[in-house]
Amino acid sequence: MAKLMGKQSLRFDHPPSVQSFACCAGKKEGEGPLGNKIDMIHPDEKMGLESFEMAEAEMFMDAVKRCVDKEGLKPENIRILLGGDLLDQLTASNFAGRNLGIPFLGLFGACSTMAESLLVGSMVLEGRCADRVICAASSHFCTAERQFRFPLELGAQRPPSAQWTVTGAGAVMLSQSGTLNRPAPRITFATVGKPVDYGVKDATNMGAAMAPAAADTLYQHFMDTSTSPEDYDLIATGDLGMVGVALFHELMRDRGMALSQSRHIDCGLQIFDANQDTHAGGSGCGCSATVLCADLLPRVSQGKIDRLLFMATGALMSPTSSNLGETIPSIAHAVVIERA
Amino acid sequence: MAKLMGKQSLRFDHPPSVQSFACCAGKKEGEGPLGNKIDMIHPDEKMGLESFEMAEAEMFMDAVKRCVDKEGLKPENIRILLGGDLLDQLTASNFAGRNLGIPFLGLFGACSTMAESLLVGSMVLEGRCADRVICAASSHFCTAERQFRFPLELGAQRPPSAQWTVTGAGAVMLSQSGTLNRPAPRITFATVGKPVDYGVKDATNMGAAMAPAAADTLYQHFMDTSTSPEDYDLIATGDLGMVGVALFHELMRDRGMALSQSRHIDCGLQIFDANQDTHAGGSGCGCSATVLCADLLPRVSQGKIDRLLFMATGALMSPTSSNLGETIPSIAHAVVIERA
Repeated sequence: MAKLMGKQSLRFDHPPSVQSFACCAGKKEGEGPLGNKIDMIHPDEKMGLESFEMAEAEMFMDAVKRCVDKEGLKPENIRILLGGDLLDQLTASNFAGRNLGIPFLGLFGACSTMAESLLVGSMVLEGRCADRVICAASSHFCTAERQFRFPLELGAQRPPSAQWTVTGAGAVMLSQSGTLNRPAPRITFATVGKPVDYGVKDATNMGAAMAPAAADTLYQHFMDTSTSPEDYDLIATGDLGMVGVALFHELMRDRGMALSQSRHIDCGLQIFDANQDTHAGGSGCGCSATVLCADLLPRVSQGKIDRLLFMATGALMSPTSSNLGETIPSIAHAVVIERA
Repeated sequence: MAKLMGKQSLRFDHPPSVQSFACCAGKKEGEGPLGNKIDMIHPDEKMGLESFEMAEAEMFMDAVKRCVDKEGLKPENIRILLGGDLLDQLTASNFAGRNLGIPFLGLFGACSTMAESLLVGSMVLEGRCADRVICAASSHFCTAERQFRFPLELGAQRPPSAQWTVTGAGAVMLSQSGTLNRPAPRITFATVGKPVDYGVKDATNMGAAMAPAAADTLYQHFMDTSTSPEDYDLIATGDLGMVGVALFHELMRDRGMALSQSRHIDCGLQIFDANQDTHAGGSGCGCSATVLCADLLPRVSQGKIDRLLFMATGALMSPTSSNLGETIPSIAHAVVIERA
């Protein structure tokens, strides 16, 4: 039975093991600093299919299959798949789910989806409502841009605050039993975020919209668990990007919980090089999912990080809400991942 | 700890109590056979707001607040809100969540969302990852029609197989502690559905798309739990409508598990009268959510139904996938609700 802590957090009594993980990404991501750590780079943005959307579904499926394969398992050995993407009605994950045949729970937390799926997957395992689950998320530059902003063919100029939606998918297998041959990282704590809205309306400045949600959840996590930034070897935020990170640090300083530069990274600033012309950095659920599976989880597995706080942030806007001139509510969910 | 049963089902070791429930709906639903059982009828489809979308968010929020109020509680007494709606990026629930201030987990299962939220909410409680949660879902005729089919102003003619999206929202409070003064229904079993696709492409014939998913999940539930249709006083399907119900019965007969007319109802055929000109019946996550909260849960509470199987079905299409000419994957999730 989990132990509830403070208002929004909990400690798992049986911390689930990260049994396997895998990620796939596109050409641009492959050319970035994490390129050689990504399991599979798909250079064709349509993956030989007729639409970007079906390509994203294929990539989602590929990440899940690779995650399963690495453990020598089959999709039927997975009790529940939990995941989502940025598309209207979770087009990518639902169409991937159709071909996987795994019982499926669709989640939507915008770019926070990877953390949401790890959080819900861990809760499902805590009550032994499954023996093994996969938590996954994806995004695709071409599907997201035409849905949220402008048709790609328009060639609209991007402001400096804009982030570049990552083409990528990540999948993490969690289980109660763990792995047979090696120690595996475990998810020990979780903090469920709440929607926060500071009145930002600009869909090309999501970092500003998401920073308050990140600060809200992280501060609450520290309060609930009686910890402070120094208790973590690394705090990895979802995809605040350059603009969001600056605001986030300011908001944390205001709350008396200043983060040191050496202990904080933002997935949006990890996946691309400064010379890749992505302006404020990467974004999309595929961003934090790919960075987690390509870089962070391997570092925890290898003992290079003992205690990681992974917090993905999501801008909960829709094309409709943007057209209505509404502001952008945001959310951030956090999990603590510790070395075995 | 839950007991896993067969491939997709489980029995809760600590079946969560349905502590409170509430629903709101629109004018047309108020004129239907369940009208006088709905907590609040909102005759203005915009609820005094500027858009249908913000009106749906308001209705979602109203259902949650009423559910909380009935127990003399406040939103801060709710550990997690789980829910979703049909809109792109869960516009209604995310914008409702912004004003409620409750930690929020967004779910998307199209019209199956009410069952998905009860299922995930119960799993969260099973591991004591929360002491009290609210599971909710909403839909709105005006937001759904213009998003999935045609602008309302076009006055497009609807084929006989079309269903009418219900304007409504339902919220159910689940807790481990139950209620102090009276026995409360409990959620005892759950079956997680998987996406099923029989190749239906017609967004105005969702019943045909969803019937195979309903049959798949229900048959699996019977196999997993070693039960048969006669073990349930009532089986309530999500919103298959007239076309879907006929196909569903045929598919269950083919599997050797024929359902008797007296033990099966479809929420889509309960909410409107035949003379309300809705063609094949009601649909939308608000349909099963409203019928559950207005009619089914009260009957379980009053001892008129001992054992209810509630299975909501969702058509996992998006406007984009329809435009791409893709078929419609569907899903159905089930929970068993028993008298205390």
